[in-house]
Amino acid sequence: MKPQHNNPSNITEHTVETQRDDTTCRTEHSTNMDARTRHHGYAKDKKRLITRMRRIEGQVHAITRMIETDTYCIDILTQISASNSALKSVALLLLEDHLDTCVASAAAEGGPVADEKMDEAIAAITRLVKS
Amino acid sequence: MKPQHNNPSNITEHTVETQRDDTTCRTEHSTNMDARTRHHGYAKDKKRLITRMRRIEGQVHAITRMIETDTYCIDILTQISASNSALKSVALLLLEDHLDTCVASAAAEGGPVADEKMDEAIAAITRLVKS
Amino acid sequence: MKPQHNNPSNITEHTVETQRDDTTCRTEHSTNMDARTRHHGYAKDKKRLITRMRRIEGQVHAITRMIETDTYCIDILTQISASNSALKSVALLLLEDHLDTCVASAAAEGGPVADEKMDEAIAAITRLVKS
Amino acid sequence: MKPQHNNPSNITEHTVETQRDDTTCRTEHSTNMDARTRHHGYAKDKKRLITRMRRIEGQVHAITRMIETDTYCIDILTQISASNSALKSVALLLLEDHLDTCVASAAAEGGPVADEKMDEAIAAITRLVKS
Repeated sequence: MKPQHNNPSNITEHTVETQRDDTTCRTEHSTNMDARTRHHGYAKDKKRLITRMRRIEGQVHAITRMIETDTYCIDILTQISASNSALKSVALLLLEDHLDTCVASAAAEGGPVADEKMDEAIAAITRLVKS
Repeated sequence: MKPQHNNPSNITEHTVETQRDDTTCRTEHSTNMDARTRHHGYAKDKKRLITRMRRIEGQVHAITRMIETDTYCIDILTQISASNSALKSVALLLLEDHLDTCVASAAAEGGPVADEKMDEAIAAITRLVKS
Repeated sequence: MKPQHNNPSNITEHTVETQRDDTTCRTEHSTNMDARTRHHGYAKDKKRLITRMRRIEGQVHAITRMIETDTYCIDILTQISASNSALKSVALLLLEDHLDTCVASAAAEGGPVADEKMDEAIAAITRLVKS
Repeated sequence: MKPQHNNPSNITEHTVETQRDDTTCRTEHSTNMDARTRHHGYAKDKKRLITRMRRIEGQVHAITRMIETDTYCIDILTQISASNSALKSVALLLLEDHLDTCVASAAAEGGPVADEKMDEAIAAITRLVKS
């Protein structure tokens, strides 16, 4: 279905490397969560996130095409700004789901896992704010 | 070669709509520029820009895959921040080329076209800073 | 030399308006927290935050002075970028403390207060990412 | 009540250090510009810029006060985001004036000075986009 488009080997490797095991939020204490939220915090928005990402893939591919076809610089910049905003919106939705589920359940448990989750979330927010 | 991936019709239309005629920087006074810089200001970096954009297409597609395969939220956020930074770098290179060529030559000519170019560049920078 | 400048009445009012009552994190369930963390989540970093803010006040006032004394534009832009980064660092430290204390304790309690805290935190992060 | 606060000596030094000599845009070819634009590109907006900066000084000082008086974290974050946006608006106005005057006149002259001006402007925009 999905053809072999843009997928340089280093990206594939990275994706593989960052895929984790099969427990919710990567912590043991989440085993009592229901099936719908298994694996991660964005289960309820997964479909919506994928739809948005496909649209962004289209936008980003369109930018490449604009450069290839010698489109006027300013029009390309406009498209890049739009893609950036769209990516940030996806990030904020993922983050919201993450805080609502993984971080919240870790906080409810308390202990070092809770601290680790908070540190990890803050580091991700910092990267996002600076990106 | 390039398969029919992610290219919703609205994106295609947008690309078409934003493609302009065949004059450098869309202003008549650039006719005396050499062939290498015809059409736009990024001719000398075109190859590099396309290479970078293809890598970003790969990164963005990898993000979609990460969501589809239930990758841990934080790892996806890291990838989104990286893609945002990469897109901003492309935008800054485009902008640099645009200022060095289109805006510089318009400024050299002066008059209303120069003003228009400056206004246009500032609007693009504003969108970029806020994206 | 410098008179009682930076405190227009509207700012003062705003500050007053946003000051809340005397409970930690504005929720009742925090009454069992110790005195050091009463009122808010940044008690342990309060001194450091104030020191940083005073430095930023100095930077921002220096920007005004640079404009008043006709300093070269680019040098002012450099100073503005530095102040923005410094303000974002303060925001990220505040946010970290807020997640570690207020949000974590609300999450531990659960219920509508926890949801409200999360929504509020996400809204603040969104504003920060877009600012 | 509030003593000689925001002016640590290092800031003063920095301001002095970045103040340049008395020529417009720091380049010789600007001597034929009229008196209103002497020294820099933002002469026509100087008053407006100073007014805005004084308001931002007030906002930033209010943030310090909010921390001192144990204001709720989220309210402080809101104020920081507002100050960041206000600073970016000042930066964009300065940049616009700079491009319209200093960069435009350098571009009209051409040569190494024009190149230098463009490089300098791009570096400033890059810092701003990343701040």
